[in-house]
Amino acid sequence: MNALVLLSGGTDSATCLAAACAQYGKENVSAMFVSYGQRHIKETASAKALAGYYGIELISIDLSPMFQFSGCSLLLGSNTPVPAESYSKQLEKESGGFVSTYVPFRNGLFLSAAASIALSKGCGVIYYGAHSGDSAENVYPDCSEKFNNAMNTAVYEGSGHMLRIEAPFIGMTKAEVIKTGISLNVPYELTWSCYNGQDKACGRCGTCLDRLNAFKENGIPDPIEFEN
Amino acid sequence: MNALVLLSGGTDSATCLAAACAQYGKENVSAMFVSYGQRHIKETASAKALAGYYGIELISIDLSPMFQFSGCSLLLGSNTPVPAESYSKQLEKESGGFVSTYVPFRNGLFLSAAASIALSKGCGVIYYGAHSGDSAENVYPDCSEKFNNAMNTAVYEGSGHMLRIEAPFIGMTKAEVIKTGISLNVPYELTWSCYNGQDKACGRCGTCLDRLNAFKENGIPDPIEFEN
Repeated sequence: MNALVLLSGGTDSATCLAAACAQYGKENVSAMFVSYGQRHIKETASAKALAGYYGIELISIDLSPMFQFSGCSLLLGSNTPVPAESYSKQLEKESGGFVSTYVPFRNGLFLSAAASIALSKGCGVIYYGAHSGDSAENVYPDCSEKFNNAMNTAVYEGSGHMLRIEAPFIGMTKAEVIKTGISLNVPYELTWSCYNGQDKACGRCGTCLDRLNAFKENGIPDPIEFEN
Repeated sequence: MNALVLLSGGTDSATCLAAACAQYGKENVSAMFVSYGQRHIKETASAKALAGYYGIELISIDLSPMFQFSGCSLLLGSNTPVPAESYSKQLEKESGGFVSTYVPFRNGLFLSAAASIALSKGCGVIYYGAHSGDSAENVYPDCSEKFNNAMNTAVYEGSGHMLRIEAPFIGMTKAEVIKTGISLNVPYELTWSCYNGQDKACGRCGTCLDRLNAFKENGIPDPIEFEN
């Protein structure tokens, strides 16, 4: 069985890559990195470093034209600054809408693109690192278990039962993902999560706060450098 | 309510566009055309002509890199010729695999890209022209009702209940789609279906045979020109 891993360069997908290599053998694993118009190239560098560390093929895909009409604050050209606070504080300010870092249907699009590529390359499974923290309080609806189950069925049916999606961390918190990764010796020093693209991670945006908390809950320091 | 229509330039999506304009008013309708590496540009020209006829915005998207590893016979650079016979004859020759014109998870990818764009543009519904003929005998698994239902749920859940998919012809045969289109005065002379890109449609490939039969069942001639 060959596996295709969605690799963003962050902690969750790095753990997912390690889990896929452990499960299927790294000679049967490829990874896919998607550019979607991020403000910076830190994520690409991390994805390349992780693929290099595990010695696997990395396929890079550009889906940024699909978000050309989006006002998402993560995207190049957006006038909205990336909020320097936790997701729950951001949601308090929204009136039933999305946080400004919601990229419209990003996971659905990424999983569909991965399905097209996985089928072309003879893979039977797509691995991706969604976990319960991303869908808590509906921060990102395209990380929820309901979404994941439906997308899995769509890929399974739409591929003539040749391909399925596995989200091995869907029932875990981010701290539990990191715990899994520690046991798998994931090189977290190679990862990048921060929404801003400075030399060091900002330590203030939603995703920095998330990973800092997750490492703290495991009683070990986050190995990347932070500004603050 | 704004609607985004997936428009390929063929008879089904042209009918779908007419149905969306009738349902939502053409001032609330946009269309999206996807390049996926087709061998020719006839489809683009038809999509533009149809959008021009209805006076609606046409968004063009290029997803061809997602099929760079596919051996599909429809794609530029493929060494496999497009089969000159009906789908059922092609399936008889396959041993449990796909017809050579299956583009891996094409509809899933197109619908996901449409979801990203629809959400950015404030549309609440995606219209697309899948019908029962495409999924009969499992010619195209990504046209089946099971796939469509799952994909609809994925889009609904992944968009935080802001967007849904409508496939108004999912229970119809292609002949019934054409019948619907005739009642809506669809300008079928502007459409293009043929998998080959000559001046006139070949009249021999799977999709040419399909539309010829559908018009024949309605007792009227197909208004486009055929070689044979």
